[in-house]
Amino acid sequence: MNRPVDVSTLVAEASAGRPRAVARLISLVEDRSEHVREISAALAPTAGRAHVVGITGSPGVGKSTSTSALVGALRATGRRVGVLAVDPTSPFTGGALLGDRIRMQDHATDDGVYIRSMASRGHLGGLSASAPQALRVFDAAGCDVVLVETVGVGQSEVEISGIADTTLVLLAPGMGDGIQAAKAGILEIGDVFVVNKADREGANTTRRELRTVLSMTDRRPGASTGAGGEWAPPIVMTVATKNDGVDELVEQIDAHREHLEHSGELRRRRSARVRREIEALALTEVQLGFERRRGGLDLERLAEQVLAGRTDPFSAADELLSGL
Amino acid sequence: MNRPVDVSTLVAEASAGRPRAVARLISLVEDRSEHVREISAALAPTAGRAHVVGITGSPGVGKSTSTSALVGALRATGRRVGVLAVDPTSPFTGGALLGDRIRMQDHATDDGVYIRSMASRGHLGGLSASAPQALRVFDAAGCDVVLVETVGVGQSEVEISGIADTTLVLLAPGMGDGIQAAKAGILEIGDVFVVNKADREGANTTRRELRTVLSMTDRRPGASTGAGGEWAPPIVMTVATKNDGVDELVEQIDAHREHLEHSGELRRRRSARVRREIEALALTEVQLGFERRRGGLDLERLAEQVLAGRTDPFSAADELLSGL
Repeated sequence: MNRPVDVSTLVAEASAGRPRAVARLISLVEDRSEHVREISAALAPTAGRAHVVGITGSPGVGKSTSTSALVGALRATGRRVGVLAVDPTSPFTGGALLGDRIRMQDHATDDGVYIRSMASRGHLGGLSASAPQALRVFDAAGCDVVLVETVGVGQSEVEISGIADTTLVLLAPGMGDGIQAAKAGILEIGDVFVVNKADREGANTTRRELRTVLSMTDRRPGASTGAGGEWAPPIVMTVATKNDGVDELVEQIDAHREHLEHSGELRRRRSARVRREIEALALTEVQLGFERRRGGLDLERLAEQVLAGRTDPFSAADELLSGL
Repeated sequence: MNRPVDVSTLVAEASAGRPRAVARLISLVEDRSEHVREISAALAPTAGRAHVVGITGSPGVGKSTSTSALVGALRATGRRVGVLAVDPTSPFTGGALLGDRIRMQDHATDDGVYIRSMASRGHLGGLSASAPQALRVFDAAGCDVVLVETVGVGQSEVEISGIADTTLVLLAPGMGDGIQAAKAGILEIGDVFVVNKADREGANTTRRELRTVLSMTDRRPGASTGAGGEWAPPIVMTVATKNDGVDELVEQIDAHREHLEHSGELRRRRSARVRREIEALALTEVQLGFERRRGGLDLERLAEQVLAGRTDPFSAADELLSGL
């Protein structure tokens, strides 16, 4: 892609809501193009507007369908919506499997909705370094809410929760009981729990088990206890394919946002997110420094010495750093 | 833990196969104790002996049971076996949920088996930086095979495959079809595929679908084509609870090991593993440098500026690095 890039024009167009400019900017920040610093500087003033909602859950629970249903429900309230589909398994932008995204086509002609997918595997610095840049593009485009969904397995679940203001954890009946949820480490990251496919057998069992394991972890499920209090993550039952329960889900997302603002938690979460981002970017710079040094030959020579038992990895790391 | 540490005695005892010394050394390297460099240097000469077998798969496919069954089958061939259970969701060594580990108690009194669990969440440098140290302890203890199993959800699946010589990917009937496997990104990392719970309905369907999606990705399933040739990942059917198919699984693991050695792939994989380890350790040093600087206050101040829109994260990262 050698098209000339005029960053200020692109940012102006994205701010005017032009979908092509939004898409182009996200590609540019994702590819770590030479323009990424200029873009980042141009986006700084509008950053932080949108409410970032992360959507996580095991494969098969209905993440894509739920995302699509949420887009519809949010649009019905007049909000502009961005969707960032993160594919941790693919090094390619666009996502390997288009099938899942087909439902999103319902929204493809709606000019209040921006949908972009983003690869994360193999990206230096991981999601912490790349996703916030994309979120700032959505901010500039005037999105009120950005839904961040992981495509594929939950490798990035914890990472997603580090990026989101509000994290939704989706479960489905028969996909594993409460103990599985506990094992998956998703109890700690969920702000709102969703039992999707709630018309299937076992949905109430799933809810009951989830309630039980949540109560064992000090995260009593129930309604929000209001401003200033602790947030007790609610459990919402949905059938995303029929839009059942999706309006209630939006209400709970909004309630959590309100809680975040009143309690000061929003600022704390965002500060932590930016710290991780800065750190990830700084480490990425160091890593690029390693790679630039004689095309990585140093690292290869050091690895050979470790493999031969002539040195240990800590000493090798010291030598690598000393050369910077 | 302020017990005095005599590294050379511990390493000598571990090399003599004393389980307590093995356990202690793994704790010391995992905790990044002050002795970690000394331990690493002492372990360098014996490193790389054991065949490292990674065991991955979604929650519920039977990873723990399969690991336990594999330990039994490997012990029957007279090999010394190490088990490293990595828990990516817990910051605590020992694993949050003991239930899964109870089956391993069958082997607790066998002095040819070493079992350790290891936390990985929140560890600087992640699995790439911490697991190789633990593997070297198993090497020193004379293990012929080390099984590395992830506890919980597959967040570390790809990381595990980066550490292992041979990666097993476990599936189970009804846990999701071939498309789910493709979405999960596990097709690329599997050297041997296992359909566990093969006595359940749908096992043959799972195998057929797996075969189909593998054939679409240039990874034709079937028997190994022998030395020098390409490795075609086999699909083994098992019922781990009954030890059915587990001997065949061991045969396929051994066949893959032979392939790795003959093809030169073992050396390539291990070299890549050590390069990642050195790099992760070096980056960890840099990160510790950030934290040491006035207790992280710099990073906090920079984050505030980014949040206020007064600077962008790239400029903040530059400033952070310039202070090192």
